Amino acid sequence: MSRNEQDLGTRQQHHYFFKNGTMDFYAGWLLGYSQLGALAPGALYHCLNQVADGDPASWVRAFEQGLRFQQAQAREAEAAGAPSRASHAHFAAATAARAALNFCPPGEAATEAMADDLERSFQAGLRTGGFAVTPWDIPFGQAHLPAYVSRDVERAQTVVVVVGGGDTHREDLWYFGGRAALEAGYGVLLCDLPGQGRTPSRGLHFGEPTVEALRVALLALRARGFGGRVVLVGWSGGGLFTAKYVERFGEEISAWVASTPISDMARLFEEAMPAMMRGRLSRGWARAMLGAAARLSPVLDASLRKYEWQFGADVGAMVERFRVMGRVDLARLDVPLLALVGTSEAAEGQRQAREVFEAVRARQPASRLVEFGPESGADAHCQVNNLPLAFDHLFAWLSTLGLGPAARA
Amino acid sequence: MSRNEQDLGTRQQHHYFFKNGTMDFYAGWLLGYSQLGALAPGALYHCLNQVADGDPASWVRAFEQGLRFQQAQAREAEAAGAPSRASHAHFAAATAARAALNFCPPGEAATEAMADDLERSFQAGLRTGGFAVTPWDIPFGQAHLPAYVSRDVERAQTVVVVVGGGDTHREDLWYFGGRAALEAGYGVLLCDLPGQGRTPSRGLHFGEPTVEALRVALLALRARGFGGRVVLVGWSGGGLFTAKYVERFGEEISAWVASTPISDMARLFEEAMPAMMRGRLSRGWARAMLGAAARLSPVLDASLRKYEWQFGADVGAMVERFRVMGRVDLARLDVPLLALVGTSEAAEGQRQAREVFEAVRARQPASRLVEFGPESGADAHCQVNNLPLAFDHLFAWLSTLGLGPAARA
Repeated sequence: MSRNEQDLGTRQQHHYFFKNGTMDFYAGWLLGYSQLGALAPGALYHCLNQVADGDPASWVRAFEQGLRFQQAQAREAEAAGAPSRASHAHFAAATAARAALNFCPPGEAATEAMADDLERSFQAGLRTGGFAVTPWDIPFGQAHLPAYVSRDVERAQTVVVVVGGGDTHREDLWYFGGRAALEAGYGVLLCDLPGQGRTPSRGLHFGEPTVEALRVALLALRARGFGGRVVLVGWSGGGLFTAKYVERFGEEISAWVASTPISDMARLFEEAMPAMMRGRLSRGWARAMLGAAARLSPVLDASLRKYEWQFGADVGAMVERFRVMGRVDLARLDVPLLALVGTSEAAEGQRQAREVFEAVRARQPASRLVEFGPESGADAHCQVNNLPLAFDHLFAWLSTLGLGPAARA
Repeated sequence: MSRNEQDLGTRQQHHYFFKNGTMDFYAGWLLGYSQLGALAPGALYHCLNQVADGDPASWVRAFEQGLRFQQAQAREAEAAGAPSRASHAHFAAATAARAALNFCPPGEAATEAMADDLERSFQAGLRTGGFAVTPWDIPFGQAHLPAYVSRDVERAQTVVVVVGGGDTHREDLWYFGGRAALEAGYGVLLCDLPGQGRTPSRGLHFGEPTVEALRVALLALRARGFGGRVVLVGWSGGGLFTAKYVERFGEEISAWVASTPISDMARLFEEAMPAMMRGRLSRGWARAMLGAAARLSPVLDASLRKYEWQFGADVGAMVERFRVMGRVDLARLDVPLLALVGTSEAAEGQRQAREVFEAVRARQPASRLVEFGPESGADAHCQVNNLPLAFDHLFAWLSTLGLGPAARA
């Protein structure tokens, strides 16, 4: 595999820092956040400079040190009565914790403590920065869905609901459009669904419940008194979850944005597996071969452990889980779609995005597909290295649909 | 010299992309701008990925391609009636042109055309982005000083005047506090002084005229009808120019910010020269030895040519020029000072900053010195990799002095 290829199949065109593809993708992703008020490039590279290429434990140590430093800076700034500096430091601390979580062994006490740090620092950043957004635990069976919601969401005319994928916490959704939408004047709902964020520690895993939970979250929003329009924005795996939602409850949704829209996750997952997995090996064989590969690559090993924790199942069962969820019935998708497609996405992902887009456009001619090439810097998975360009397209498109951030009632 | 040491003496703690220290510093600087609405990280790294380490010509080609791409994007966005996207693309184009200029051979027609592109794209970014800032040519002898000024500057209560150094165009001053001050509610004046930006092509060079020109620019601001308070903010060599100004006309200045304050540029310059220059060689010998080094390092060669063009003199004469300007008389500095000091600055620069600070604080106890260590990400020369942190300190300090951005008359 080349240095620019992801261990788990997500390619990227550019080289940022590491030879290890997964680490390099994470480095680029964090760099993308630096545009949006997270860890500054200098502070980020201070951490990256402490990481041994391909060594997940050194990554965790480096970002934990960054977290402790930023926490101390935030305390100092609060004591000095400097709220802007405090807010920046809190958000930087949250980003360092979030980065560490990429390679923390899932389910361990130290990892849960790191997730506590992520939440505390992020929420302190919101508070000291004066953002009108609050945490919200949405009841879901015996558990709850951890969310953030804009304070006066009931009075919003339009709410942007950001849905993440296989590697997001609700705090990530702030950078994937939450903050931009809030500042543009929209209401926002940022919600962890089963399998995302910390939910696997509470017995929630990826699969059918992920889509059911999105239904529960949107009903909870209505129950709060929100009577306006809903825009669904799905990133990565969120491109499947929002597609499934639009398939079933499209009449409730005014616009759908996805990077990228996904119709068949089982197939995408199989194509994204390392080459040796692409044949239909038995689950036992697949696991054995992945296990051998993981012994050679601690990064791959850490990534697999995390996926297994999120699914509550081994790798073979993941594909099976999506096969049970089934393909999205394209004939039932009838909501205006903005499809965002980076040219460095896996070929199968690009193919599905175009297929979904063509199907939707036939019924909804206001639909658009925007392709991002390497020069744009937005060609990576989910446009992580130029999210503002994605947002420019998103908000301009919503305006053409009459879904601009109208004055509140 | 280690990979983390600048060819011309500016060290930095962190490694961003290149083994060549000067290129790596520029890469980090451009990455710092990405936080402030310039070229996005993905688009920047697309260019950096085309650069051969240590080869200035490949750098120029890569960023010229980036420029052409962003210009086309901006045209497309304007045609589509998407002003936010157009503004972002124009600023990205300007940043690509500015990056190319780091290694363009000075004085050549193609380089002048690149500087035209920088100005046109930047000004289009201001226009499409709705920023209330306009170009202003300030008469200066037979030439003029190219500046930007906030549109209603006459009505501002406080104007932040940003002064650059040996490697800035007025467009850089937008990122070095111009935009942040404008958005905080201050008036702004961003002015190229002799030796800076394109002024060497018009016969203006670094030296005594640089300080005289700052006087002319501030008198021109008064002549426009501005009657409020002036805050001087000097970066890099601007730490000397503003010190010289405060020494002579301190009674006109309400607050002085410098990263870093400099009292003796001749000494700083000598210390920053490559080791072989540190002995007092004759100018002829020095030039011969630098020439030999430059043949081995095209990056050093390009940097030296640019400095010589800016000074209108060879390297030996540069030091002499500053020796003639003389040391700053610390006893005459009597304006509240905020000294910003990165721990990766050259040792002599840090020493002078502390010396100036101690002298000023004796008379102006509201003065502060803020030191930035490597974890902060702001330790580099001029805090280029975490400018928002510098701004947080700057604006909070101005508020404690009663120099907050008061409502306009």
